[in-house]
Amino acid sequence: MSDIDLLVKRSRGGDPRAVARLISLVENDSPELPDVMAALVAHAGTAAVVGITGSPGVGKSTMTSALVSAYRAERKRVGVLAVDPSSPFTGGALLGDRVRMQEHAMDREVYIRSMATRGHLGGLAAATPQAVRVLDAAGCEVILIETVGVGQSEIEIAALADTTIVLLAPGMGDGIQAAKAGILEVGDVFGVNKADHDGAEHVVRDLKAMTRMVERAAGDWRQPIVSTVASAGRGIDEMMEAITKHREWLTDSGELGRRRRRRVRDEIEALALTTLRQRFSDLHGDDRLDTLADRVLLGELNPYSAAEEIVATVS
Amino acid sequence: MSDIDLLVKRSRGGDPRAVARLISLVENDSPELPDVMAALVAHAGTAAVVGITGSPGVGKSTMTSALVSAYRAERKRVGVLAVDPSSPFTGGALLGDRVRMQEHAMDREVYIRSMATRGHLGGLAAATPQAVRVLDAAGCEVILIETVGVGQSEIEIAALADTTIVLLAPGMGDGIQAAKAGILEVGDVFGVNKADHDGAEHVVRDLKAMTRMVERAAGDWRQPIVSTVASAGRGIDEMMEAITKHREWLTDSGELGRRRRRRVRDEIEALALTTLRQRFSDLHGDDRLDTLADRVLLGELNPYSAAEEIVATVS
Repeated sequence: MSDIDLLVKRSRGGDPRAVARLISLVENDSPELPDVMAALVAHAGTAAVVGITGSPGVGKSTMTSALVSAYRAERKRVGVLAVDPSSPFTGGALLGDRVRMQEHAMDREVYIRSMATRGHLGGLAAATPQAVRVLDAAGCEVILIETVGVGQSEIEIAALADTTIVLLAPGMGDGIQAAKAGILEVGDVFGVNKADHDGAEHVVRDLKAMTRMVERAAGDWRQPIVSTVASAGRGIDEMMEAITKHREWLTDSGELGRRRRRRVRDEIEALALTTLRQRFSDLHGDDRLDTLADRVLLGELNPYSAAEEIVATVS
Repeated sequence: MSDIDLLVKRSRGGDPRAVARLISLVENDSPELPDVMAALVAHAGTAAVVGITGSPGVGKSTMTSALVSAYRAERKRVGVLAVDPSSPFTGGALLGDRVRMQEHAMDREVYIRSMATRGHLGGLAAATPQAVRVLDAAGCEVILIETVGVGQSEIEIAALADTTIVLLAPGMGDGIQAAKAGILEVGDVFGVNKADHDGAEHVVRDLKAMTRMVERAAGDWRQPIVSTVASAGRGIDEMMEAITKHREWLTDSGELGRRRRRRVRDEIEALALTTLRQRFSDLHGDDRLDTLADRVLLGELNPYSAAEEIVATVS
């Protein structure tokens, strides 16, 4: 049995160190990844993948921790991926997360992992589904992906999750702003956390007004808005119920299959584009590009024809 | 004679409307661009390309206008490209530029054009060298490219220009900051504009200290620091002299040939990558990606093998 097969076997048996080792291989874009994925692919595909996103400070980690407790009360094995798309290291914020996650640290049925994706050539789009596949094959019934909603990352996470929770909080000065910036489209469930703070009803009201404006056909999902105080465990039952309802809708409507297919398509595309980019940079080692550039400079060749020759070369 | 040939002939004859029309074709990534470039490529390659970059408010447009006047005094035909990498429109700032450029507006030997590159699939890296080629073939002996130094754009512009002027000014609170953020590497000539304002000597001193720390071999270019008050025409002679000296060094050292080759290489690569991306999005129309994704979901195929099949398909 090869090292990889052994590692996969141990991870499927629930060995947390084997799971951690496989996710490190994903994170570092290891040359062994194709073999790892080939060994895992037949054992994955059943976990429910829930994304949790929102601006810094809305309470994503507290909510994640509260949801882990709720799933553990149902005796489910849970995986948590804290994805930091920009940091090459596990940043300071994630240290804080780990403290909040400490109550689950000794629970062998909970895998918690913060992951940087910068080392991965395919970026977030390839690394995250691969890490999800590792946890899925390791028997996690639920996988929570937590990522900060800045720039494009919340849209990318939404493309990776079956259910995306967008978390807001009052007093962030960005309740409506955030909602305007594309968050309406990515959220399957909205959470208004810190609901005991001033202005929470205001955020709920704004969200309600905005979700009402979205045109929907009969049978479309209607995004629920759940008020929570995650730090005190308030509203978590309602949040769990909203996630469960969304999952039922996903299954009944056939949307689950479409989302999972799209996720794999995105992963394949990211890997294919990475392969082609790699071939481009390999070209820098030889003189074909230089020769073509010189012919363009001499006026013998136009740059589009040169590009066609390069495309033919890397193909 | 085809429309394109006629347009190219008229632009080479100095018809500003033909030049403007060709740059619009570049900006909009017209399907006729390969024919345009094929017709132009034999007539381009002699213009001196000077990039001017710096933070907002340092006086880039005023400097550009002053340099245009200086080149016109030498009876040179001048092209000016104001490149705005992010805006899909000619933004508000460029309206201001146009006012400042008004003194040259009636001069038929000066082509001024603001250009947005977002519409171009290859982005800045492909659109700018193509626009430079249009102006070059139209007989411009000098082409000034003005771009705001934010994010990556100043590095991209430096890769496109023969000579890059990095402009700083006192009181921007970012003299040293800007210089630290990669500007030391991209500047061939530093201009400290608004030299009559408080703190200008401070900026000059900091720049001197920093350029001294860069290790150089014998024969390497030593970046001059020129103090200017562009709005009053002060220091412009010195700036012109620095540009001329840099050009002599480029020619004598062989660096000019290397930079031009690199520019064309970058253009070819950007076009090739665009072609491949295009083939990817064409795939979305058929069901090959879906079929592969379904096989991965069924556990029959690993995503890397699927990616290889896609690479083979687009090749």
